[in-house]
Amino acid sequence: MKQIFQAAKAVLVCVFLLAAVALSAQERRYVQAYELNVIGKALPTGGVYQRFDPKPYGMNGLRGQQAEMSTGLAVCFKTDARSIGVRWKIGGFRSHTNMTPTVACGFDLYIKRDGHWVFAGSVGPGRLADQYEATLVRDMAEGEKECVVYLPTFDHLDEMELSVEEGAYIEPMDNPFRFKIVCKGSSITHGASASRPGAVWPARLCRELGLYCVNMGFSGNSKLQEDFARVLADMEMDAIVFDAFSNPSAEEIRARFDTFVDIIRQAHPDIPLIFLQTLRRDSGNFNETTRAYEAAKKAAAREVALRRAKVDKNLYFVEVDEWIGTDGYGSVDGIHPNDLGIDRMLRQVSPRVARILRKYGIK
Amino acid sequence: MKQIFQAAKAVLVCVFLLAAVALSAQERRYVQAYELNVIGKALPTGGVYQRFDPKPYGMNGLRGQQAEMSTGLAVCFKTDARSIGVRWKIGGFRSHTNMTPTVACGFDLYIKRDGHWVFAGSVGPGRLADQYEATLVRDMAEGEKECVVYLPTFDHLDEMELSVEEGAYIEPMDNPFRFKIVCKGSSITHGASASRPGAVWPARLCRELGLYCVNMGFSGNSKLQEDFARVLADMEMDAIVFDAFSNPSAEEIRARFDTFVDIIRQAHPDIPLIFLQTLRRDSGNFNETTRAYEAAKKAAAREVALRRAKVDKNLYFVEVDEWIGTDGYGSVDGIHPNDLGIDRMLRQVSPRVARILRKYGIK
Repeated sequence: MKQIFQAAKAVLVCVFLLAAVALSAQERRYVQAYELNVIGKALPTGGVYQRFDPKPYGMNGLRGQQAEMSTGLAVCFKTDARSIGVRWKIGGFRSHTNMTPTVACGFDLYIKRDGHWVFAGSVGPGRLADQYEATLVRDMAEGEKECVVYLPTFDHLDEMELSVEEGAYIEPMDNPFRFKIVCKGSSITHGASASRPGAVWPARLCRELGLYCVNMGFSGNSKLQEDFARVLADMEMDAIVFDAFSNPSAEEIRARFDTFVDIIRQAHPDIPLIFLQTLRRDSGNFNETTRAYEAAKKAAAREVALRRAKVDKNLYFVEVDEWIGTDGYGSVDGIHPNDLGIDRMLRQVSPRVARILRKYGIK
Repeated sequence: MKQIFQAAKAVLVCVFLLAAVALSAQERRYVQAYELNVIGKALPTGGVYQRFDPKPYGMNGLRGQQAEMSTGLAVCFKTDARSIGVRWKIGGFRSHTNMTPTVACGFDLYIKRDGHWVFAGSVGPGRLADQYEATLVRDMAEGEKECVVYLPTFDHLDEMELSVEEGAYIEPMDNPFRFKIVCKGSSITHGASASRPGAVWPARLCRELGLYCVNMGFSGNSKLQEDFARVLADMEMDAIVFDAFSNPSAEEIRARFDTFVDIIRQAHPDIPLIFLQTLRRDSGNFNETTRAYEAAKKAAAREVALRRAKVDKNLYFVEVDEWIGTDGYGSVDGIHPNDLGIDRMLRQVSPRVARILRKYGIK
């Protein structure tokens, strides 16, 4: 059986090589993505494809690595190309049981059509390599395209070039999105488990509303820590949407919530802080411990957020008890919403968040 | 940066080891899955976790490998355990750009509750190893559970054991599904790109209708070939649902359709043959070649199927032009429906297929 797979792999490698030859035969022109317009950073940082530098905040370990990932970043450009490719190198975190390589380590291209951002193509790495190259879209009609390509959500992006056919132009485009909305949260905000980087809920929510999004999702590590609040305090933004209650325990929620909000409020006294209730977990369908643990978390979240909302008229608690639906198909693993769970969530959350933001002229 | 990832990997490995130790500390009892009830095979074959033996049909190469995958297979058992684990070895096809390791190489458990099959847990391999072990569900209430666990869709399953805590029983359960519906098709039928094995469309369609499903999806290779028709002719079934028009070109559809149906009809003169129109491809949103190619395929599919349906009252053509929706979020890569695309498809397809099947007493 192993021999069969070896043979199949050889065939696949040949196909990849032929595709690569076909692409290069077109004489591609490569542009460093950082020479275009990289948007979505939390703070200025030396690393062009990093959200922010974790060192000034003393963030070490996994949170430090996550801060340096390209989560939520996007490259804006205009081109008259008929094909767009990407060549990239990534840090090494490749295998996530509950995620596609496309969302974790790949790219997702949207092109504007009739005022809407329309999906044009997505790619990801198929097997471990030092460098990857893939075509996002080809055989397009002539004419200028306004493009936004979303970057890997669960990896360090070491190098990224975009390619067009020789003779085509590719140039920076201004950030097409308005205002600045920070989405702070857990793995669910970070990207698990949309199938593509541009389908992660903060990206979908903001793009569909025309708003500029900064993704501050930290998988497994978003526990209302004070250092995260200090990062948020140092950022400029018009609003924050929080998936704040997915990672911490009920005890942590009760112990940390007010201090967390206090730190943010010192820097941003009046912006809307929109706290989403955490999602339904199908992992509690039969696991009684999980069910009780999650119920306690939700009760604590409701309690602290509603209490604070009484004294802070710009703080909101959006109770969406069954984010991902109740039929068991909304998640990949009982926890992380797949595209179906995200769609169900956004059908409830988007109109409510949009209504709150409109009160502040954010629209 | 690489060092950081190395360190993080070391931490993850420790977590895995601790989890494994914690599991084994409970003193687990392991049972070979083949000693329970493995359902979903196309034909009897020596390999316990293979769909059928491709050699008698002269199927070599990738199609031969795909025939030997555990796609669509499931294990039925009863247990009074409070936790269920799985330990397994797989063939080696690990990395699919557009799929989670969970759907390609993992497991998906459903437990009956109030007459419905409810999602209980899913697992997949996180990194390359010779053997994997994971907990599907734990901390369940006492009492007997009727269980169906779906097997990897895009891999060879070499070994599989289920585990329960020491002292619990685990025993074979009769196939809980009625009749036998074969779903024959492309990668979309094979499993790309649901997030879990039990969320692949044939599994969902049949499980929700209480029907027994055999998955004959062959990624990239389902082109109305005569040898596939001969396999179908040799199988016993009550109906076939075809995703037959996703892989072949318009020319292949026109050239091969009638011969393909002829071979099946010689063996199965009266069973319902339900041909689904192929799905919308968002890869044609901007790629004009793809858009024209797919339109030609759909026209050919409509033409050959409707012509045949005029002379075969048990042959159906289900036109679902926009399977996955039109907003660009229904697929992982412009081709393969994610869970959202599958849900949108089934909302249209399931009632129509169920209505046809009911005419034949299949319900």
